[in-house]
Amino acid sequence: MKQELLYEGKAKRIYKTDQENVLWVAYKDSATAFNGQKKAEIVGKAQLNNKISSFLFSMLHKKGVETHFIQSLSDSEQLVKKVDIIPLEVVVRNMTAGSLAKRIGVKEGIPFSNPIVELYYKNDDLGDPLIIDEHAIFLEAATADEIQFLKEQALSINEVLKQFFKDKGIQLVDFKLEFGKTASGDIILADEISPDTCRFWDIETNEKLDKDVFRRDLGTLTEAYEKILERIGG
Amino acid sequence: MKQELLYEGKAKRIYKTDQENVLWVAYKDSATAFNGQKKAEIVGKAQLNNKISSFLFSMLHKKGVETHFIQSLSDSEQLVKKVDIIPLEVVVRNMTAGSLAKRIGVKEGIPFSNPIVELYYKNDDLGDPLIIDEHAIFLEAATADEIQFLKEQALSINEVLKQFFKDKGIQLVDFKLEFGKTASGDIILADEISPDTCRFWDIETNEKLDKDVFRRDLGTLTEAYEKILERIGG
Ligand SMILES: Nc1ncnc2c1ncn2[C@@H]1O[C@H](COP(=O)(O)OP(=O)(O)OP(=O)(O)O)[C@@H](O)[C@H]1O
Ligand SMILES: Nc1ncnc2c1ncn2[C@@H]1O[C@H](COP(=O)(O)OP(=O)(O)OP(=O)(O)O)[C@@H](O)[C@H]1O
Ligand SMILES: [Mg+2]
Ligand SMILES: [Mg+2]
Repeated sequence: MKQELLYEGKAKRIYKTDQENVLWVAYKDSATAFNGQKKAEIVGKAQLNNKISSFLFSMLHKKGVETHFIQSLSDSEQLVKKVDIIPLEVVVRNMTAGSLAKRIGVKEGIPFSNPIVELYYKNDDLGDPLIIDEHAIFLEAATADEIQFLKEQALSINEVLKQFFKDKGIQLVDFKLEFGKTASGDIILADEISPDTCRFWDIETNEKLDKDVFRRDLGTLTEAYEKILERIGG
Repeated sequence: MKQELLYEGKAKRIYKTDQENVLWVAYKDSATAFNGQKKAEIVGKAQLNNKISSFLFSMLHKKGVETHFIQSLSDSEQLVKKVDIIPLEVVVRNMTAGSLAKRIGVKEGIPFSNPIVELYYKNDDLGDPLIIDEHAIFLEAATADEIQFLKEQALSINEVLKQFFKDKGIQLVDFKLEFGKTASGDIILADEISPDTCRFWDIETNEKLDKDVFRRDLGTLTEAYEKILERIGG
């Protein structure tokens, strides 16, 4: 059923299947940061991210969010609906952290009174730059209406995830989403939601349980990701 | 009447006067680019920018735009109303050029169907980063209402300037504005409008008549600025 490799990214391999509109996703054991400048092979990461992302996409589906997720195939593989990825990284932030804290010169962990949605232009050669809505429209990455829909979806997903993780003793600091268009023209949530694409902080200790462990050499990545998987009960 | 130096910037010196709400601005012969990394002394630039900016602020005043400009004092000096500068660079773009063209990976000179307004956080240490409205509000640089006002003002100013320069055979590609709050709380246009802060292209030849001549070593800066001053009839 798995057919030829369609695309190899930094975190996943995407294969065709015998169904035109279905893709086979195999998570990789690679960790990368800073637009690929820092790299490592981390045994077990593929399984952790596949399990965490599958769990979260199923959960979002139950809450009424349309996603690309079809089913898990193995510890590190899943089937998804094929989409045309909208070349925008939709970032939701509940608190200052990471590149934003650096950009505007503030410390990490300051909560926003309302969550902020940012758009980054998904283009590795350009380093995925922050853009404003008008740039995205000019680039024909999305229309004004589509951008409004993406932002609304991102904020609804944030509400679901924030509450879910709070109940598990984890602060959802920020995260990145990708959306895509199905053959029938619907825009659905795609890609992954994992400690690679979210910032998770332990509510009690502020311990980082996400890719910042790798970016900042804070310990063993898989131990952090294991904690997330355990806490969410996967 | 000119009293102590209040602030020395890269392009101007600002002095107190015997009037609390009035400042004395002396333009400098310095040219800087890339956040101060490239520097030169260019004799005559102070006078050119003071004359061009005085002319354009007077013209905008006649068109109903509230500005800080009071009067010209000499070839390189002017009196302005003192304001608290809002720490946002308000950039209006009619076409792709400069840092935006680089950011989104497109060539220069592509017109936008509608002019785009961008906000940059005025902070040299951070390299004046592009920000979105929500960042500006979080930073308390301005309120949501103030941002809306700044954008509307910027677009009106663009309409006036674009038409004015078109009649002189010059394309107004983009420009940067600064606004400030007066003692009575009004937001008015401040700083300068000059070939240092605008991109001007000859409509016929596309010759650059602005600071890009210095940034990109395209010729003699004062010759380009002289052409602008001549064309506007100053
Ligand atoms: N349902 C889907 N249909 C088609 N493509 C998808 C789908 N879900 C995710 N993708 C894309 O699969 C690619 C591989 O994922 P991976 O995370 O490894 O890429 P990446 O290294 O982050 O690179 P990229 O910059 O291309 O996103 C990504 O480009 C992602 O956008
Ligand atoms: N009416 C005004 N009242 C108070 N300050 C003003 C006024 N108009 C302009 N300024 C400020 O005067 C300063 C000096 O101008 P100059 O262009 O030399 O600064 P600069 O080198 O660009 O540095 P900066 O990053 O501080 O703007 C600027 O900070 C500008 O914002
Ligand atoms: Mg990815
Ligand atoms: Mg200046």
